[in-house]
Parts: sequence; C-alpha cells; structure tokens
Amino acid sequence: METYSAIATFVGAAAALLFAILTARKVLKASEGTDRMKAISASIRAGANAFLKRQYVIVSIFFAVVFAILCVMAAAKLLTWFVPFAFVTGGFFSALSGFIGMKIATAANARTANACREGLNRGLRIAFSAGSVMGFTVVGLGLLDISIWFSLLKFVFNLPANEITGAMITFGMGASSMALFARVGGGIFTKAADVGADLVGKVEAGIPEDDPRNPAVIADNVGDNVGDVAGMGADLYESYVGSIISAAALGVAAFGSFEALALPMLIAAVGILCSIIGTFFVSTKEGASQKNLLAALSRGTNLSAILIALASFPLVYFILGAAHWKMYFAILAGLIAGVLIGQATEYFTSDTYKPTRKLAASSETGSATIIISGISLGMLSTALPIIIIAVCVLVAYFVSGGAASASMGLYGIALAAVGMLSTLGITLATDAYGPVADNAGGIAEMAGLEKEVRQRTDALDALGNTTAATGKGFAIGSAALTALALMASYIDKVHSIEGGAEKLANLSLMNPTVLIGLFIGACLPFVFAALTMESVGRAAQSVVKEVRRQFHEITGLMEGKATADYAKCVDLCTKSSLREMVLPTIVAVIVPIAVGLLLGSTGVVGMLAGATASGFLMAVFMSNSGGAWDNAKKHIEGGAFNGKGSDNHKAAVVGDTVGDPFKDTSGPAINILIKLLSMVSIVFASLVVSFSLL
Amino acid sequence: METYSAIATFVGAAAALLFAILTARKVLKASEGTDRMKAISASIRAGANAFLKRQYVIVSIFFAVVFAILCVMAAAKLLTWFVPFAFVTGGFFSALSGFIGMKIATAANARTANACREGLNRGLRIAFSAGSVMGFTVVGLGLLDISIWFSLLKFVFNLPANEITGAMITFGMGASSMALFARVGGGIFTKAADVGADLVGKVEAGIPEDDPRNPAVIADNVGDNVGDVAGMGADLYESYVGSIISAAALGVAAFGSFEALALPMLIAAVGILCSIIGTFFVSTKEGASQKNLLAALSRGTNLSAILIALASFPLVYFILGAAHWKMYFAILAGLIAGVLIGQATEYFTSDTYKPTRKLAASSETGSATIIISGISLGMLSTALPIIIIAVCVLVAYFVSGGAASASMGLYGIALAAVGMLSTLGITLATDAYGPVADNAGGIAEMAGLEKEVRQRTDALDALGNTTAATGKGFAIGSAALTALALMASYIDKVHSIEGGAEKLANLSLMNPTVLIGLFIGACLPFVFAALTMESVGRAAQSVVKEVRRQFHEITGLMEGKATADYAKCVDLCTKSSLREMVLPTIVAVIVPIAVGLLLGSTGVVGMLAGATASGFLMAVFMSNSGGAWDNAKKHIEGGAFNGKGSDNHKAAVVGDTVGDPFKDTSGPAINILIKLLSMVSIVFASLVVSFSLL
Repeated sequence: METYSAIATFVGAAAALLFAILTARKVLKASEGTDRMKAISASIRAGANAFLKRQYVIVSIFFAVVFAILCVMAAAKLLTWFVPFAFVTGGFFSALSGFIGMKIATAANARTANACREGLNRGLRIAFSAGSVMGFTVVGLGLLDISIWFSLLKFVFNLPANEITGAMITFGMGASSMALFARVGGGIFTKAADVGADLVGKVEAGIPEDDPRNPAVIADNVGDNVGDVAGMGADLYESYVGSIISAAALGVAAFGSFEALALPMLIAAVGILCSIIGTFFVSTKEGASQKNLLAALSRGTNLSAILIALASFPLVYFILGAAHWKMYFAILAGLIAGVLIGQATEYFTSDTYKPTRKLAASSETGSATIIISGISLGMLSTALPIIIIAVCVLVAYFVSGGAASASMGLYGIALAAVGMLSTLGITLATDAYGPVADNAGGIAEMAGLEKEVRQRTDALDALGNTTAATGKGFAIGSAALTALALMASYIDKVHSIEGGAEKLANLSLMNPTVLIGLFIGACLPFVFAALTMESVGRAAQSVVKEVRRQFHEITGLMEGKATADYAKCVDLCTKSSLREMVLPTIVAVIVPIAVGLLLGSTGVVGMLAGATASGFLMAVFMSNSGGAWDNAKKHIEGGAFNGKGSDNHKAAVVGDTVGDPFKDTSGPAINILIKLLSMVSIVFASLVVSFSLL
Repeated sequence: METYSAIATFVGAAAALLFAILTARKVLKASEGTDRMKAISASIRAGANAFLKRQYVIVSIFFAVVFAILCVMAAAKLLTWFVPFAFVTGGFFSALSGFIGMKIATAANARTANACREGLNRGLRIAFSAGSVMGFTVVGLGLLDISIWFSLLKFVFNLPANEITGAMITFGMGASSMALFARVGGGIFTKAADVGADLVGKVEAGIPEDDPRNPAVIADNVGDNVGDVAGMGADLYESYVGSIISAAALGVAAFGSFEALALPMLIAAVGILCSIIGTFFVSTKEGASQKNLLAALSRGTNLSAILIALASFPLVYFILGAAHWKMYFAILAGLIAGVLIGQATEYFTSDTYKPTRKLAASSETGSATIIISGISLGMLSTALPIIIIAVCVLVAYFVSGGAASASMGLYGIALAAVGMLSTLGITLATDAYGPVADNAGGIAEMAGLEKEVRQRTDALDALGNTTAATGKGFAIGSAALTALALMASYIDKVHSIEGGAEKLANLSLMNPTVLIGLFIGACLPFVFAALTMESVGRAAQSVVKEVRRQFHEITGLMEGKATADYAKCVDLCTKSSLREMVLPTIVAVIVPIAVGLLLGSTGVVGMLAGATASGFLMAVFMSNSGGAWDNAKKHIEGGAFNGKGSDNHKAAVVGDTVGDPFKDTSGPAINILIKLLSMVSIVFASLVVSFSLL
C-alpha cells in the first residue's frame, strides 16, 4: 500500500510537471511580435526578475534566521531534526512555484498580444496555456514535495505513520512564510505602481491608461506579474500542500493507518489527471462574446470537477473500506462548496448582477455614497460564503462519523478541503490567465498595435476580472477549510507532546484563556489589513512623487519626444514594497508564539479560531468590495450613468482606488495569515507546552 | 441582609432620581432667550416628540407580539409567568430613560444658547446639568427596576436566590429590544437628516451649516436628540441593568448566597452616590480654553472613579467575607479598563494626537487616500482596546479564584463589568452634554445671535466631540464585558434546565456546532453594519430629494423671503427611519433562535462568542474611523492643510460623510446587537433545549 501510494503520488506530480513543460514549450514557440513588443516585454521581464531577485535575498535572511532558531530548538530536543530542513524545502518549493509562474507569464504577455493580432481564440489559447503552466507547476511541485518527503521518511528512515505526518506538516510553515512575503511584497508593489500611475497619469496629467509617456507604466505591468502571478502561486501552493498534509495527519489520528494517510495524496493525484483532461476543453470560436469566453473556461473547470467527483468514490470505497464510504460525501461537499463560493463571489462583484449595478448607480450622489455602498456590499456579501462553509463543515463532519468519534469528523473536514483544492490545477489556470491578458493589453497599447487587437485583449482582460474574482473566492474558501484542518492538526500535535494533553484539557469557550485568545486572534486580521493598507499608501506616495518629478524634469516627455525613466519607477516600487513587507510578516510569526507563551496552548487554539473566523470575513469583505468597485467603474466606463469622464465616473474612480489595496493587497494577504498562524503554532508547539506562563 | 440590600438599592435609585429632578428644575428655571429662540426650540421639541410617539407605536406592536409569544411559552411551561412581564417592564423603563433624556435635552438647548450669551461657564453648567439629568435618570430607573423586581420576587413570592436572578435577567431582553429600536431608528434618523442637509445645503447650494434657509436644518437638530440622546440612553440603560443582573446571577451560581447576589446592586448604589459628588466639581472659569473645559469634566469623572474605588473595598470585604477580598481587584480592573479604553479612543480620534493629524495630512492626495487611511486607522485602533479588555478579563477571572473554580472566575468578570459601569451616572452626563451643546450652536446660528455666543457654543460643542468619542469607547467596552457576563449567564441558565447540562457538555472549539456557531456569530456584525448603512443611504436619498424639491419649488427661499417647510423633512426622516429600523431588529431577534434550533445550545454559545469578538472589533473600528474623519475635517476647517474650501477640505468632507453612518448608526447599534443576542438566547433557552435539531 505505502509503496503504491508513493508511486501514484509521484506519478501525479510528474504528470502535472510534464504537462506544464509541454504547455510551456507550446507557448514559447509562438512569436513575440514586433521589435517594439519584444522590447516592452523585455523591460517588464527585467523589472519582475529584479524584484524577485531582491525579494529572495531578503527572504533568504529571514529563512536563515528561522532555520538557525529551529536548529537550536532541535538541538534542545524541542523538535526533531527533520523540521528545519522541511521548513526550508517548503519555502523553496513555494518560491519556485511563484518564480516559474512569473517566468511563463512574462514570456507569454507579448505572445498573447501578438496572437490577438491573428484572432481571439488564438489569444485565449496562449493566455490560458500560460495560466495552465502556472497552475500545473503549483500542484506538481506541491505533490512532488509531498511524495519526496513521504518516501524519504517512510522508506529511508522507516518512521511510523504519525511521525511521518508530524514531520511533513512543518514544511507548511516554510511554504506559508514564503507565501506571505510573496503576497504582501507583490501586493504592495502592484498597488503602489497602479495607484501611482493612475493618480498622476490618468487623473493629473489626463493621459490614457498604459500610455508609454507615463513613467510608472512598466512598473504597473511588472506589478501584475509579481503580485497577481507570483503572489497567487505561492499562496495556493501553500493551501494545497497544507490541506493534503493536515488531512494525512488527521487521517492517521482517526484511523492510525497508512490508508487514511494516503487517501488525500491519491485524491490530489487523481485531481491532477482530471484537471489536465479539463484543459483540453477550453477553446472558443472567433468573434466570441464575453459570455462565450466565460463558458469556454467554465466548461473546462466544470468537467474537471465532475470527473473528480466520479473518480473519488471508488478511491474512498476501496482505500478506507466499505464501512467508511460515506466519507466520499465530505470530499463532494468540499468540491461543491468551492464552486458555490466562486459563484457567490461572481454574483456580488460582476456587473451583470444587481449588487454591482446598484453600486454603480450610487455614484449619482458622489464619491461618499459609492464608498458607503461598496463597504456595505462587501460586508453583506460575507453571509453567503459563511453559510456555504458552515454547511460544508457540518456535512463533512457528520457524514464522516463525527457524532461517534470527533477525530473521524475532523478527518472529514480536512478531506473537504482536499476535495475543494483537487481542481486547483485548472482553477488556477483560469485565474493566472487574467494578469497575462492584462499585460497583453498593456503591450498592445504601448506598442501602438491596431485597434482591434486592443479590443480583443480587452475582451480577454474583462473575462480575467471575473475569473480573478471567482479565483479569490476559491482561495479564501479553501484557506478557511485548510485553516480549520490545521487547527485540528495543531491540537493533534499538542496531544502528541508529553504533558500536552493536560494543557489542552479545557478547550471550552468558558475558559478565559480560550476566550482571550479568540479576541486577540479575531483582532489580528484587522491589524494586518491596516498595516498592509498603510504600506500601500506609503509606497504609492513615493511613486506619485517620482512620476510628478519626471513629468516636470524630463523635457519633451509629454510630447513623446523623450522617453520616461521606467526603470527608476520599477526600482522605487521594488525598494519600498520590500521594505514594507517585513513588519507584517514578523507580526504574523511572532504573535502566535507570544500568545502561546503568555496564554498557553488553549489560548493558541482560541487565537486560531478567532483569526480564522474574522480573517475569512475580512478577506471576503475586502475582496468583494474591491471587486465590485472595480467593475462598477468598468460598468460606467462602458457607457452607463453618463459614462467616462462624468462626475459619476470620477466618483467610481475614487471607489476603485480605495478598492485596490482592499482586493489585491490586504484581502489576499489575510488568506495566508490565517494559515501561517496555524503553521507557526504547530512548529512551536513544544516550546509553548514547555514554557508557557498559563 | 436581603432587606438591607433591597433598601440600600432603593435608596441609591431614589437618590439618583431625586438628584435628576432637582437638576432638571434648575435647568428649567433658566430663560429660553428671545422669541425666535423659543420658536426654534419648540420646533425641535415638536419634531422629536413626533418621532418618539410614532416610534413607540411601532415598538408597542413588536412588544405586544413578543409578549403574546412569551405568554404562550409560559402556558407551555417553557418559561415562568414572570418572564413576559419582566420583558415588558424592561422595555418600558428603557424607553422611559430615553424619553426623559430627550425631554430635558430639548428643553435645555435654547437655554444653553441663552446662557452662553452671559458666559462660557454658565453655558457649560446648563448643558452639563441637562446631561446629568439624563445620566442619573438612566442609572436611577435601572436600579429602581432592579430593586422593585427583587423586592417583589423575594418578599412577595419568596423565591430562592437562583430563581430570582433567573426571572430578573429576562427583563434585559425587553431593555435590549427597546434599545436596539431606539439606536437603529434614532441613528438612521440623525444621519439621514445630517447627510441630507449637508449634501444639498452645504455642498450643492453652498449655504453654511445650520442656515435657517435649509429645509433639513430642524430635522438635523431633531436627529441629535433622538439619535445621540434617546438612543444612547436606552443603550446604556441596557448595559447597566444587564451587567448588574448577570453579575447577580453568576454570584448566586458561584456562592449560592444572597450576599453575592446583593454585591453588584450595592456597588451600583454606591457608584451613584459617588457620581453625584463628582458632578459638583464640574465648572470652569470665564475665558477657559478647550483644555480647561476638558479638565473640568475630567475632574468630575476621575473624582467619582476614585471615590468608587475607595468605597467598594469595604463593600467586598464585608459582604463576601475576608476570604474573598481579592475580588475587589476585579471591580478595580473594570473601573481602570473603562478609563483606559476612553483614553485609547481619544488618542485615535482627537486631532491633538498624531493619528488624526496624519489622517488630515492624507487629504493632500485626495478623497481616496483619506478614505483608505481612515479605514486603516480604525482597524489598527482595535488592537489597544482588545488588549485592555483581555487583561481586564484575565485579572478579573484569576483574582476571583477562577483557577480553582470557574464559576468564581466568571463572577469576577461580571463584577468587572459592574465596576466599569459604576461611574455611568457621571460618564453619561459628560456624554449626553454633547448633543445639547450641538443643538445650542444650531439655535444660536438660526436665531442670529451675536458672534461671540456662537464661538462659545462652538467651544462647548468641540469638547462634546471628544466626550462623545470617549463615551463611545466606554459604551463599547462595557458592552463587551456585559456580553461576556451574559454569555456565562446563558450557560448557567441552560444548566438549570432539565437535560440542559448534557446538551452543553461539549463546549470545545473542536465541536463543529460550536465552531459553526462562532463563524455565524462573527458574521452577524458585518451583516448588521451593512443593513444599517444601507438604511441610512436610502433614508438620506429621500431627504436629498425633498430638500432639492423645496429649493426648487419654494420661491424666495434662498433670498430669505420665504420659510422652508421644516416639518416635511422631519416627517420624512421619521417615516423612513422607522420603516428601516424594523428589519435589522427582527434579524437580531430571529437569528439566535434559528441558530439554537438548528445547531443546539452549543451552537448558541459559539455564536455569542463570535458575535462578541467580531462585534467589539467592528464597533471600535467603525466608531474610531468615523470619529477621526470628523475631527480631521474639523482640523482642516481650523486652518490646517489649506483650510476651509480647499481641495483638502473637500476630501475631508467625503471622509466625514462616510464616517457618519459608521460612528453614529452602525457602530453603536452593534453594541446593542451583541447584548440582545445573549438576552434572546437566555429567554428562549428552554425552547432550544427542548426542540433543537442537533
């Protein structure tokens, strides 16, 4: 059984990576177009590479310090010696996921623009293929990391099941920390560049978006890649790996067998194969409407989901045994919840539905009312996802036999998370396609391509906004389920430590340490959102000043006789976003340790529950408010409510500007925060059990 | 012991009410000034009375329906027959508190304006006296209600201690429901009128604030009274009564004795006497600066707090016995936490400190950046109050012996809430003084009084903003502590029901019903904030249209030759705010019952914890963001950052408009929401235990 599982998992990982390589070669074969297009694409690539390179230097320092601390703890027998190395590999693979995704995205942008000169379907194929490379790299590397560690611990060190999962779960902390750096750093970069370019270029100087005279225009395009691609990749790598390993750990706790450990890995492997099949069904006809385009993408993801739903039944039935076939419904609940949350997000943020149209209408009475309406839209939109997750958790728990045995029920919740994330290969492909299309549009504009090309890239980009919104909903939903599974893993971990079980004896809400932990945990997403928003503000401020300076000092720039100093803006964004990403990350790492040492393990559990609940709400609120403002603005630009340039439009631009850090910096960063808190708590569990004050 | 306690409590109540009556007579003796002033004041009074009258009609229907339901439940033996009547008296006294407060405030506004013609100190005395009437009416009626019910249940029905508190706690539900109606209805009224008056009058027509040509100007002044006075009175009545009774109930659970039941009542009674003494130290010299004025008010509240700190030690020592003298520190922790939360609020919202000054500076780059900065300021400001409450809860729990006996610790937490609220008489006086000064300023403007009069009322009003902010912090902090005490009372209540103890056996965070309840509870404040904000938007929209219509149709209005139809605006605000207040209240009453029936009592506990944590955060965030925007605008109007009329000022006005429903409608309503949820859960506990699904 163990050998077969290891092989099957490895085969799944290899299939994903092979598919990614073949798809990448297909993308790279396409032409980059004119010399001007090549040059622009090269600048974007150079900027993105420079950012990542410097980011990795800073991150390496952090990893070196934590590695050293973990080694000291291992020497003090507070950890096994596997932990420091697992930590580093988790970070390495997470970074690699983001890096490869960013490489292919920056290689595909000019190619997509060029393909759009031939036709819409051709453009869609290139952009979606680039997205697929990213999606399958993430799942492939995730499963590869898992299969290597599993084989090593099982076949080389010959550890029992519970020690294997205990060691493996700690590479989640490496992945989470890397993801947080990527998300926060990239998120600040992209929004600082975007806000800076818009405020001075569009609003003050009155030149169009993506105009080559704007010094921040390259930085803006770089931002799409480092934020939306590299950040997103690292984020979902982490959810993916975290959900599989915590399910494996909880499976061991519930069944004590290798079968329960292997099931989540096998579901993931099967999910990869089903997702690959799905990608072949994504294509459209020439002259397709936006609806057709969306249908093309949905066809792929829906088909994959159905295939997984069919394939996982025999998996559960034969691996867990006939007595536990009902656990299949936990996986199904997760799959369905993922789809539903995506649809709920679309309903609240797409201008084809009432909420965003009403939001656009509130621009009639100015910017204050559109802000109030957008905030209340976002807050109201939290109810539906909460109910979806609630039903999913209850179903997963009780069908798995939670009423008789809590550990069975918790395993069921973790399986739901695995089920939801099993479609990740293709879901991420549709999501990562957006920034590629966005960049392609920018290149078409800057290179002065024909008008119909820009129209085609705009069609692809508009669709990208919808897939980005559903993708965000999916990311948040899966993060919440994963966080719950990790919380259960934390408790499992503490129980495995000597003296840990007594420390956790009273997890009741009436225990004041639990309650206080809950309050502090619930507060963290608020503080985190505030810190990241302020960072964007400060970074954007510096970009605004630089763009103003260039407009002022470079003679002939506005007349198109001189070129702007793009590199300076890229450099500025890089420096300020990297400086700003450090504090939030350190807060996220230190708080759970501090809470543990002061309030004990029960306080940590309270903190994790509070952070997950309030983090989920804040992330949904901020993403949906931001998405709705963005689309309300686009709706007005499309001609509604007096159209572009009207007072309504000005009000909508204010809404969109407020929404930018909401949806692209703070909201997504909270996703990672809630997982990182659990990961840190798990790694430092024995420290807390040994030295806590209460 | 029981007799002495009942007498002492009654004496405390009588002292408060007597002091309120004497102070009211002093206020009423002052002159209302010129005929024009009298007429304006009469219009405001008429509008406020009309609003309250119609509000009480709607509320009566709600109370009649719930009363009937409770009677049916009593007939079915799910409740005792005391409950329906306790419910009604709670609502009645809460309404009466708001009503009397509003009466005196509308009587004192012209008198304050007139007194300011004589001098600043004279104006302060009248306005503060009016606030005192309100403050001492609230605590007097609260304690009167308690002493009457206690005497009735003890001396007439001769019930044992636990049945007395069990019956008494249900009048909290009446008080909470009434408070929610008052807060939501009044909050929507005041902001609809304010936003409507500002948007059309100040922004579109360009006439100054409180200009008599503005048709919404009377409605705006009415709003200050029905929202800030009547709403605030009902809210704090409810916290006050709720904290005392839940402490009494938890005292019985911990000690099983009348002594522990009596202690919170006696602390409250002593608190009233100390607060009365404090009021005599509030006065200032002519030509006092704002700092002097603030010092005058602080002298009164600080002195009261010190006296209570001194007096409660012997109370604890002699009533609970020498073995439990450490419980004194629980009371002290509550007292100190109340002061600290007020100061933290002041730090984040007053323009004498860095955060609000930085916020004002962010107006340099327009309205989008001031919105982002204001939101992040509010979110960041949640950290300090959370830590203060956390430390207070931990101290209260452990000094009371919670480590050995949880019920002792919970009693300690409830005592902390009582300690915090023991200064309510004078705290509320400094708080309710604000709207009176605000109204006085309006009357001075409308009646065309001398410029120096307006300067004096402005000085009083500016101070009112600071006391309102600290008052809000105090209201939120005490609501959170009271909600925690009520949560403990709920558990106590369920344990007292046959079969209830087993239902609550697993309150662990790993129980999925607890966890799901937590998620749903945490979501409620978000939904509630969204609903109330949208209500304000809709109501304001109708006011905007009406004001535009009057400017358009009434010839000679702008030239001052014709008078505006003030009554129409008041009527419109009344109608729309009363229509809008129904849905949020019904949500707040039905959700806890629905959650209970679906998820069982453990789900209810999860929901209460989630709602308290996220509600506290949301209330602090929204109040502080709103307060800071308001003061940033005032800071700019005071001449900073290019002053009034500049682009900075316009950006700040957008911030202030967004902040209005934040700080005066949604934020304060969440305070009541979290208490009402517990109250409803307590009353319907036996229904849930008997009929829940899970």
